[in-house]
This record gives sequence, C-alpha cells and structure tokens, in this order.
Amino acid sequence: MLNGLTGDDETAVGTPQGEPTGRPWNRGVLRGINERTLLDALRAAGTTSRAELARATGLSKPTVSAALASLERAGLVRRTGEVARGRGRGRAAVLYEADPEAGFVLGVDVGRDWLRAAAADLDGRVVGRRDAPNTARTASAMVHDAARLARSVAEEAGLDWSQVVHTVVGSPGVTDPGTHRVRYAVNLPGWGRSGLFERLHAELGTGLDVMNDANLAALGEYALGAGQGSRLFAYLWVGTGLGAGIVSEGKLFRGRHGAAGEIAYLPLFPLPDGAEPRPEAGPRDVSVPRGPMEDAVSADAVVRLAHAMGMPAATTRTAKDVFAAARADEPTARRVVEREAARLAHAVAALSAVLDPDLVVLGGGVGRNGDLLLAPLRSALRELTPLRPRVVSSTLGDDAVLLGAVAMAAQAARERVFDTRNGG
Amino acid sequence: MLNGLTGDDETAVGTPQGEPTGRPWNRGVLRGINERTLLDALRAAGTTSRAELARATGLSKPTVSAALASLERAGLVRRTGEVARGRGRGRAAVLYEADPEAGFVLGVDVGRDWLRAAAADLDGRVVGRRDAPNTARTASAMVHDAARLARSVAEEAGLDWSQVVHTVVGSPGVTDPGTHRVRYAVNLPGWGRSGLFERLHAELGTGLDVMNDANLAALGEYALGAGQGSRLFAYLWVGTGLGAGIVSEGKLFRGRHGAAGEIAYLPLFPLPDGAEPRPEAGPRDVSVPRGPMEDAVSADAVVRLAHAMGMPAATTRTAKDVFAAARADEPTARRVVEREAARLAHAVAALSAVLDPDLVVLGGGVGRNGDLLLAPLRSALRELTPLRPRVVSSTLGDDAVLLGAVAMAAQAARERVFDTRNGG
Repeated sequence: MLNGLTGDDETAVGTPQGEPTGRPWNRGVLRGINERTLLDALRAAGTTSRAELARATGLSKPTVSAALASLERAGLVRRTGEVARGRGRGRAAVLYEADPEAGFVLGVDVGRDWLRAAAADLDGRVVGRRDAPNTARTASAMVHDAARLARSVAEEAGLDWSQVVHTVVGSPGVTDPGTHRVRYAVNLPGWGRSGLFERLHAELGTGLDVMNDANLAALGEYALGAGQGSRLFAYLWVGTGLGAGIVSEGKLFRGRHGAAGEIAYLPLFPLPDGAEPRPEAGPRDVSVPRGPMEDAVSADAVVRLAHAMGMPAATTRTAKDVFAAARADEPTARRVVEREAARLAHAVAALSAVLDPDLVVLGGGVGRNGDLLLAPLRSALRELTPLRPRVVSSTLGDDAVLLGAVAMAAQAARERVFDTRNGG
Repeated sequence: MLNGLTGDDETAVGTPQGEPTGRPWNRGVLRGINERTLLDALRAAGTTSRAELARATGLSKPTVSAALASLERAGLVRRTGEVARGRGRGRAAVLYEADPEAGFVLGVDVGRDWLRAAAADLDGRVVGRRDAPNTARTASAMVHDAARLARSVAEEAGLDWSQVVHTVVGSPGVTDPGTHRVRYAVNLPGWGRSGLFERLHAELGTGLDVMNDANLAALGEYALGAGQGSRLFAYLWVGTGLGAGIVSEGKLFRGRHGAAGEIAYLPLFPLPDGAEPRPEAGPRDVSVPRGPMEDAVSADAVVRLAHAMGMPAATTRTAKDVFAAARADEPTARRVVEREAARLAHAVAALSAVLDPDLVVLGGGVGRNGDLLLAPLRSALRELTPLRPRVVSSTLGDDAVLLGAVAMAAQAARERVFDTRNGG
C-alpha cells in the first residue's frame, strides 16, 4: 500500500541496509533488526504464516518464532487465524499480521481556503475525515483551528487522543528541517513566523512534522495516485501559488535546505539576443518573496490574463470562472487557457532540463483542469524542448496533500511505535 | 582520496549496505563481503595493521587474517612493512595496503577542440597524461584518434595494455544507459550516431563507459576539486556548449534518461504580463537540438553579444578575446561580461529553484573566468531569487572532465578487479 515510501534521505531504519556502518553489532541490535525485518515483511505481505515469513526474510524458523512472540507481546503483531496445511502435514499454521491499530496518526492540510484533517491507522487506512473553511485571520488562530479540527476528527473516529502517535501538517512554504521555521509561505499570511512549529506541537502534543504541501501532495500521488510506480517524478501544484514536490526512487528529494521544487522562483528570462533581462523579470527587492514563475502562472495570473484578453471583470473573478467559461466553449476563455498552458509548459521544460523526470503530475486549483490544460501544454512542450516527460493529471485532486500527510505520518508512526514498544 | 565516489544510483556492491535484500546469505557470500569490506577499509585508511583493521571493521582478528591472506593471494593487497609495538608487546605488527597497481585505468576527454587521455592506478593516481588537438573531421576518425591517444598514454607510462581494466570516455551529449547511444551532442558533429560505443569498445578492448562530460567534470570536482565535501552541488559547464553535472550525496544524479542537468534546454520565458512567449524563445523545430539557454550563454553567444554591443569583429573572434579585453579593462568588454554573468545567473536561479543545491561550481572555457564573472553573477542572483547557493570557480579547470573520467574508471575497475580475482 504505502510500500517503500520514505520521507527523507535515509534508508529504512532498522534493516541491515539502514544500519550505520561502524555501529557495533551485538545480539540486542541484531534482535531488533530481525524483529523490524519481520514487521516490515508482515506489513508488505499482509496476513502470513511463520513458515512463509522465514522463507521471505531468510531468517531461521526459531528466530522468526522468537521475534514474532516478542512483537506480539509488544502489541505490534496479532494472530488472525489459522490455515490448514496439506493432508498429513500436522496441525494448522497460525497466521499473523502487523497490527495496524497499534497506533493512529493524523494528517492535516492547512490551505489558504480550507483546513482538512484525517485520522488513519498505521497502514495509512483513513478512519476519519473532516474539512472546514479556513476562516482564521491570524497564524495563531489558524494553529488553534487546525488543532481543534484534528482533535474532532480523532474523537469522531472513536480514538482516544493518547492513541495518536504522530501528526504531519502540510502547509505552503519551505520548512527548514533544522530550525522548524517555515519560509516563503507567501500565500498564507503570518504562517512563516517562527514559533509556529512549537505552538502546533503544544496544541497537539503528538509527534509532529510540518511539511511543504507540494511535497506532501507528491508523496500522496506516489503512494496512492498518479505517481505510483514512477522512479522520478514531480508533482506540479498550480493554484493560489506554484510549487513542485519531487519524488525520486520513492523518497522525497528535498534539496539541501528543503527548497527543492520551489519553482515559484524560476526566473523569467526575456532575452532576444543582446537585450538586458527586463527589470520586471524578477522581484527587485528580495524581501518581496513571491516568485516570478508563480506570479506568471498561479490563479491570480489566470484572472489577470483573462481580463487583459477581454473577459469581463464582473463575471470573471476567479480562475475557476475562466476554466468554467472555457469548458462552455467561450472562445476568449479557451485562448486564455491555452496561454496558461503554454506558460506552464515553460515550468515543465525547466523541471525537465534540470531533473529529467519520467513523469509530471499536474494538480492544484488551476492544475486540476487537466481536461483543458493537458493537450495545449503537451503541444507547447513539443515546441520548447526535446526533453519531455509524460504529463498527466493528479488522480487524488484536493486530497493529495492530506493523503500525503497521512502516508508520511503513518510511516513516522510505524518507526515510533516500534522504537517505543521495543524499548529501542 | 576518492572515497564515497559512485557513479550511479547503487550503493557500493559487496558491502552489507549494498546487498540486495532477499539474496540468500551463505558462507561464500559472507566471505566475499568481509574481504570487500576489508579492502575498502584498507583503501580508506591507507597502510594499516591487522589489529587496526579489526577495530575499524568490527570483524574478528581471525576473520581479518583469513581475508587478508585471500586478498594477498589474489594480488589485491600487499605487505608494506612492519611497525614496532610498545615495549614487551611481542613482535612487530605487519602493515598492509590495498595494491593500487592490481589494475590500471584510462580516462579520456573527447572535446570539440582537444582530446585528452590519462592513465591511472586503482587509487586514481595519474601515471601518464597526454593532450592532443582534436583535428578529426568525422566521428570515426575521432574514435580512432582517441583510442590511439589512450594507447600511447598507457605505453608511455610503461603499462602493458592487458593491465588496463577499464576506460571511461567523457563526451558532450546524453548517454542513454540502456542503448549506449549518445544523444544531443550538438557541438560534436557525428558523435551522436549509434554504434559509437561499439566502435570505441572494439578499438579499446577494455571495460568501457561513455559519459556526459559535465557529469564527469562534476565527479572530478567532487573527488578532487571545488566540490569536495558538498552534499548536493551542480557543476555548471559553460564553454562551446552549456551543461550541468549534479552530484547528490556523492553520487551522480542522472535523471530518468541520463538527461538531468541538460540545462542547455532551459526555456527562455519572455513574459510581460499578457504577452505570448516569443517565437524565438525555443527551437521551432525539435530536430534542431541546440537548447535556448545554451544559445544564450555559451561561447558563441558571448561573441555575438560583444559584436552587438560594439566590439570590433576583426579583433573579437572568440569568447577568450572578450574576457582578455575585459581583464585589460576595456569598458565595452566589461559590460559584455556583466551581461553574460546576468544571463548565467538565470541558469543558476533555475537550477536552484528546482534542485536547491548548496554549491554551484563554474567551469568550462567561458565559466573558467570566475575572476570576472563571479561578482556580477552573484549580484544578479541577489536580484533574481531568494534561493541562492554558493557559487565558486572550478579548481580543476581544463582537467575536470579527464580527472572525473579517471575517478569513475578507477571506481569501476576496483569493482571489476575484485570480482574477477575473487571469482565473484
């Protein structure tokens, strides 16, 4: 289900592959590794017998038995039944599974217009869900509202708050893993202030990660949506803002400061030979953090473009209005959409020239209009560059960030629950 | 020296970290792993005693002794001397080292103007070197000349050709790892034809990789130059063409089709609000493979810009002339250089928005002029984007591709020699 999903640059902790070199090996470490290997094998295989586990992991049957007993005592593994063996081959084999309810997690999506929260078990299976309009005027109020929404989702799902092991919150902006500070959250006023992480942590009291929403959407699409099976893809989020989440070999590619995929800051480059870059190409003052590419393709830009091309301001207030008109075959709206698609093609071409992904997934309030955008985008891309990835629509839509947050939280919780219960 | 350098997405073969999961473990595999671990530890530590090796690897002394004996028999390890222990602590300890002369390698740089070749031992220590002008008119002649140069270098170094285990050839263009076909080698006519790899292989008869020159230069700078210690950097090659090599956590980041860093194809994006992208922004015909960014910043562009800004065509024939004039304080030349730097800043800004590297290393015939380019480039970058990596000059200069090729070849040869001699 969520196999192989990892949110950072490390390989899975606890398997021989993930062991830091030079760490002394002893029986305690080895036992932990064996148990972790078994638990991962159980999670991958679902319900499984002891003999199958021994075969799948290469561990001996006595080792498997001892590890299963220990995991059962810790509440991480449970017996689910028995399966009869072939005639004359002794008594039935006991079946085991990883207990997905050994802990629960929350995913929260803090967007400009909506707050969304979901509760899930350790397999990432959603057990509760609630969306609410984001009416908060300040970051403090937003923290409070998000925490309240999260608690109400857990409560409605019948969970005791103590069962919630980990929460992942998605928001615009770049979270510096060192300082926990969110930067460049241009479209969510006040959200970039320091102390946000601490306040969220104080309100929730669970394990917590705050992550870039495009990154989470990318993980969501990788785990459950259009990115499944891709070895290197970018989720292109185009809505009130612009961003990309990059998933390489099942892992988020975050860059050195967490800012990989911040394509809002792709520079525009108007260069007929010999001319200067135009002054309006980039922000003149670096304290103005809105990126030039974001400014050129996000929802506001679609509306500005529509007005500039003659659509009436009175009836064309949002990007949604423009796409609705285009869908109703209004000719100007169709031209606006084509132009927007050509602009997006530049962002895709830049991503391709640097990253060479096999896939670009288009999402967000603007990007979701794949039925209108994809054909002209692909055609513009053919004009622009020989390096062309496949471009498709998001299949998770509005849920990508939330489901990515849930997947990340479940992954983090599986580590935490194992470490806590095994005293490691 | 070349620690941790790997050229593909795999971890080092033969260590526990690199073992494919699910592979059955048995004594033979384990012995091979132990020997490989010891060999790697010896290479990392230099000359070392048995006791130190046991401490460093966590292996028992008897295991270390057996593995060393086996490696000595295979000619991979040699005794280099003895060191006296403390008073009353028995006889002197024998010192071992990995035998760097268990095999030799060749690195070859096929550039538009020069062919360069170097021979090196398994540690990547260069034992012979020769450069020759590239006068070949056809790809066939180039293959022949490159192979002849390589053989002459080996001969001058006193090597028998049979001692040469592996060759890495750097060239412009993208090598598809599947088909071995080189694509997009715009500045080396004929080089992109299929069959190139096979002809090189037939001429040389050694193990062979053909790799993108910017990628090799990046590896060279990572192993021996300005990129040492960086966790994610891009080598920006600006010369007759434009390209970038990306090294992430000591590994080449190559993208899904080997085209990561092909920033020649970064689109130009002239977009005052509401305007169409200019027709001249991208190639109109995809069979014309020169990229728009390459066309805007490579050596030819510097010359065109110089002419357009009033420098005399008669005395300004190459980018080198422009930089020489700027270094002599010719005012127009200085303005040309500043404009070139501002253009390069766009490429750096695009790299940063997608990748978020901690470092960009500037190299190539144009890029090497860091004394003139870096200050205006950094200043233009401050205007363009809040995401600014450190930008420095290459320290290997013209040798970056060749030394990267040698480093890659040595790495590949260390695997090959170990596998061949240990019958693995």
